[in-house]
Order: sequence, then C-alpha cells, then structure tokens
Amino acid sequence: MRAGRRRGRAPLPGGRHRYGAPVSDPARRPHELEAIELLSSLVGPPAGDEVWIGDDCAVLGPASARVLFATDLAAENVHFDRCHGTLADAGWRVLVQNLSDIAAMGGRPRAAVVAVAGADLDELAAIYEGLLEASRRFDCPVVGGDLSDSAVLNIAVAILGETAGSAPVLRRGAGPGETIYVTGPLGGAAAGLRELRADPSTVSPCVTAFLRPQPRLAEGAAAAAAGAAAMIDISDGLGIDLWRLAAASRVGVELDDLPVAAGATPDEALGGGEDYELVFTVADPGRLEQVFTARGLRAPVRLGRTTADRAAFHLRGEDLEVAGFEHRLG
Amino acid sequence: MRAGRRRGRAPLPGGRHRYGAPVSDPARRPHELEAIELLSSLVGPPAGDEVWIGDDCAVLGPASARVLFATDLAAENVHFDRCHGTLADAGWRVLVQNLSDIAAMGGRPRAAVVAVAGADLDELAAIYEGLLEASRRFDCPVVGGDLSDSAVLNIAVAILGETAGSAPVLRRGAGPGETIYVTGPLGGAAAGLRELRADPSTVSPCVTAFLRPQPRLAEGAAAAAAGAAAMIDISDGLGIDLWRLAAASRVGVELDDLPVAAGATPDEALGGGEDYELVFTVADPGRLEQVFTARGLRAPVRLGRTTADRAAFHLRGEDLEVAGFEHRLG
Repeated sequence: MRAGRRRGRAPLPGGRHRYGAPVSDPARRPHELEAIELLSSLVGPPAGDEVWIGDDCAVLGPASARVLFATDLAAENVHFDRCHGTLADAGWRVLVQNLSDIAAMGGRPRAAVVAVAGADLDELAAIYEGLLEASRRFDCPVVGGDLSDSAVLNIAVAILGETAGSAPVLRRGAGPGETIYVTGPLGGAAAGLRELRADPSTVSPCVTAFLRPQPRLAEGAAAAAAGAAAMIDISDGLGIDLWRLAAASRVGVELDDLPVAAGATPDEALGGGEDYELVFTVADPGRLEQVFTARGLRAPVRLGRTTADRAAFHLRGEDLEVAGFEHRLG
Repeated sequence: MRAGRRRGRAPLPGGRHRYGAPVSDPARRPHELEAIELLSSLVGPPAGDEVWIGDDCAVLGPASARVLFATDLAAENVHFDRCHGTLADAGWRVLVQNLSDIAAMGGRPRAAVVAVAGADLDELAAIYEGLLEASRRFDCPVVGGDLSDSAVLNIAVAILGETAGSAPVLRRGAGPGETIYVTGPLGGAAAGLRELRADPSTVSPCVTAFLRPQPRLAEGAAAAAAGAAAMIDISDGLGIDLWRLAAASRVGVELDDLPVAAGATPDEALGGGEDYELVFTVADPGRLEQVFTARGLRAPVRLGRTTADRAAFHLRGEDLEVAGFEHRLG
C-alpha cells in the first residue's frame, strides 16, 4: 500500500496539501496514513512471513522464491496534467513509479499490467509510447491490461518482480547506529515542475528529472547485495519517506547532509517528491561503497545515521519536517 | 488485455454502446478491439511460449511454474453507480471480475493489489467491506495497493494466480467439432440491473446475480482438469465473448441452445454481460461431465459445437449477433 504522489510542493486547492507536521503529533499525521492503517487492520496480518500492506511492494511466497507485487496509479490533474508534459511522459512516469517500488526492495521487474480509464485511441497510443519506452529500457514487458470509459483519465499499473539473489529489503529492517544513504541529489523533479509552471517550454535537467524520472534498479540491487538493512524510494519527499522508514524500523534519524540537485532549493530537496531516488541504511558503509564502485554505479551520498532514540528526527541538530505529499482522503 | 464491462444492455449516452455488429463486418467491430490490436502491435510478440495481451490473463514463466497475471478496473458511472447497489457491492464485483479472469484460465487466485482513486475514508471502508468479503470467500488476500485523489472514483485491481495442476486454458485452443459448454444460465445480471432501474429497492435472485456475482473458480479448474481446449469468461455478453473465443481459435460456432436465467430475457442472456459464467470447449464431453459430477459441481449446459467453417456464427441455424458491451474509446 503506497501513499499517493504529487508533483512539486505547492499546496493543492482547498488546503489538501499537508506538510510540516512534526513527527510527534499524531493528530496531524497525514490522512493517508490513517487510511492505510485502516486498510491494514481490515485486511489482517499477512500469512507466514509474507509482507502485505505497508511496504513498497508486497512480498509473497517462500524465501526460496520470493515474488514482489505492487500497484501505483496516476490520476489526471493529480499526478499529471496536459499543460506540463505529454501523455507519453505520464505513461513513462507511471511505469517508473512502479519500477521504483521494485527497486526499493532490491528486486528486478518481471512484468506489468496496465488499466487505463478515460483515454481515447490517440491518447492511449500516446500513453503507451512513453510507457513502452520505459518498459523496454528497464526490461519490464507490459503483458496485459484493461480499458474503460471514464469521465477522468486514470492510469493504474501493477507490477510483478522477483528478488535478484538477495532477500527483499523492507522498510522496517533498520537498526540504530546504521549509516543512511541516498542514491542521488534531491529536489530536481520539484524544481522541474516549478520551471514548467513558469514557462511550459522550459528544457532543463530538472524538467527532464520531473518528466522522465529514472528508477534506481541497479542501485537498489547493489544496496541489497551489500546488506542494506532497510530501504524505501523517495516518491513523496525525503522528509516523509525517511520518516516512514524510521517509523517502520522504530529508530530515530540524525542527518548531517541534504544533497540538493542543481537548480533545486533545499525545500524542494526535502519535500519535493517524485525524485525516485532510494534511501537506505547499512551497518557496513565500507562494504556498501565498495559494491557500488565495483558495479560502476554513482557513489551514494551519506545523509547521516539512525539512532536508538525513536523521537529523534533531525537535520544538523534541528527538527526535520515530515515534509512531502499525502493525499487528503477524508 | 480485457474489454471493459457494463451493466445490463441499455445503450450508454452518446451512442457509445455498440452491439449487433455481424462478425463478418470488420468496419463495425467494436472500437475496443482496435485498441487492443493497436496495443498488442505496440507491445510486440511475447517472450518464448508466454501469453501476453489477448487472453483473460497473461501467462508468464516456464511450463512447470506458470504464473497468471491480469488487471480489471471499475469506473464510477461506467461499471457502477451509487443508485444501484452500494460501494461494498462495487468492491465485491471488481475483485470478482479479476477472480473470474483467473477462473477462465482454469487457475486459482494467489493475491490481489488494489488502486483506489477518488474515495474518501468512509467510501474506502465501504469498498473494502465488499472487496474483503470476496477476498476471504475466494481465498485471495489483498496484499497491497495505492490511494489517490481523483475527480472520479476509480478502482483498479490486479490479480496474481497460479495453475492448479493443469496447463492454463487459453481462448485460442479450440478445434472444430468440439462441444461448447457454459457453466450456467445467462442474463441474470442484466435482468437484475433492469429490475433495480425500475425499483432500486428490488430484492431478487437476478439483483443478487448483478450485485454479487460468483467467480466460477471450481468450474474453471474442473474444465481444465477435464481437458478443456479453450475457455473465456462471459463478462461482456455470450455473443461477444464466444465470438472472441471462436475468432482466437479460428473456428465457427453452431449453437443449439441458449440457457436463459429465470427472470431474464433471451436478449439479456445473449448480450447482457457481467454474468461471469465460463464458456469452454471440449473434445470429450463425457469425460467433462464426469469430472463435474465427481467434484459435486452443477452440470454445465451444452450450447452446441465448434465448426471448421470460420464464418459460421449461428444460433439454431440463424445468424448470431456479436452482442455485448464494448467501450467506444475513439
């Protein structure tokens, strides 16, 4: 079960955007978390050692043959609109959102199915243009789907993945005293949306980061192989996604650094979302950096460390905002 | 890739409902088939002997460990509305649509993920009430999902299944001279919607058939075990779904019988859709009926037989309408 996405950090109409809620105030928790807690309690506990609601993917099957299963949707005028990017960009991004869920478990994609409501034939062809570009690039065939009328365009993708030689890395596995890494600088996607809003014809690295994000599949697999204890992808913003990892793992967080993408602001790096970088923790940072180097991957950035004090959620000693996007459903 | 669904047979606004197109007139083929052909050609041929777009489920993996994967969505005011049935009914039905796709391959369900756009917390709880009732009844846990704002309520479910000791039964496997069966009388769901439209407080077997359809999982597995050559579920109407099976198998169809549910009209039985009965063909009807009897299942109804003449599509010697619902996307 995943939280929804937004682009950038601007409040949605009607005060629907909530951020800046301190982690210690449950009354201000995003509504979506309540919804996920409700659904979790309705569904009940998972069978055996499977993982159901509450991580980037569900983890099914015996340890010898783990299957990863997730879904992520894109709704028009919530996740994308036609003023900022094409329907091909929307198709690319919705598949990448799903690929990123697989990456965040350290897995590799197997196949996707796509349900599209509200697209005519031309729109469908445009959506599939971007979707299949990502499908081919990241070796994840689109093997089925469903089509329907609808008053609003909605694209729901479900993805199936498998583990790549390591156990799936959950959100809840971090212990105190581990090093926290992120796979790249943050805020580029939010900055790209800001640039497009100012001038829809902008071409820039941030606009590319926004319209054509990259799933960090190789990095996720490398982190899993190097013994990452916990991992999550940054779809809703570092502040909220790192808080989710810390809350699931029952650890605190002390950050020394916040890597900001060129062209982005620190605020965008913290709460922007849609960067699809991965955050993870490891007990052995030397081994982690070796594995990334050996695989020819960009070195991940050390953000700080986990602590035993679960109430700690700090950036350079100051309270860190639980910043990012949650849909307000209630 | 599945065609969309509707309830009942009344035309949608704006002439979007197409039926009665003779099989021999490609210009009048439903638009959705064009869309599926387009997407099929964009995606390209499947890997190895896998089955991708064009059947009730995709079939992935080696013959020794087949995985079934499908998705089916429900859009408000297309698949359900709030005047005829509750959101719990809509939740039940969208999971059953997916379970029926697994049944139509002769498989058993493994797990589902659910993406809901546009529901508030109360609506979400109502949708999940029915969804989880079906989940428990048919042993298919809901293991994950996604939540989002949206201007219109959309529920997309994806389902994962496995084969139950037999190879998956495809649409394209029928040969000439086989017996065609259906698992039960048809038209009940369409009649139920008609009754609800006349009086929303109606309680009747047809209303139950419409609001709470049953996936024919046991029947699908029995048909597969008894050597069914081809199978499809009747989600859009016998006329169109049987035509899909015949077209995929390159056979003709001569029907002697059309079993009409009590309370339904022959027209509803032929084109109503949403009955979720299974149609299949077998070379050895005696064995088939034995297996159903041995498993304590209701005897399937013999509809007729397949023929080598691909142009034949007849009911009691008369041209059979390719009747049922296709979304008009163009």
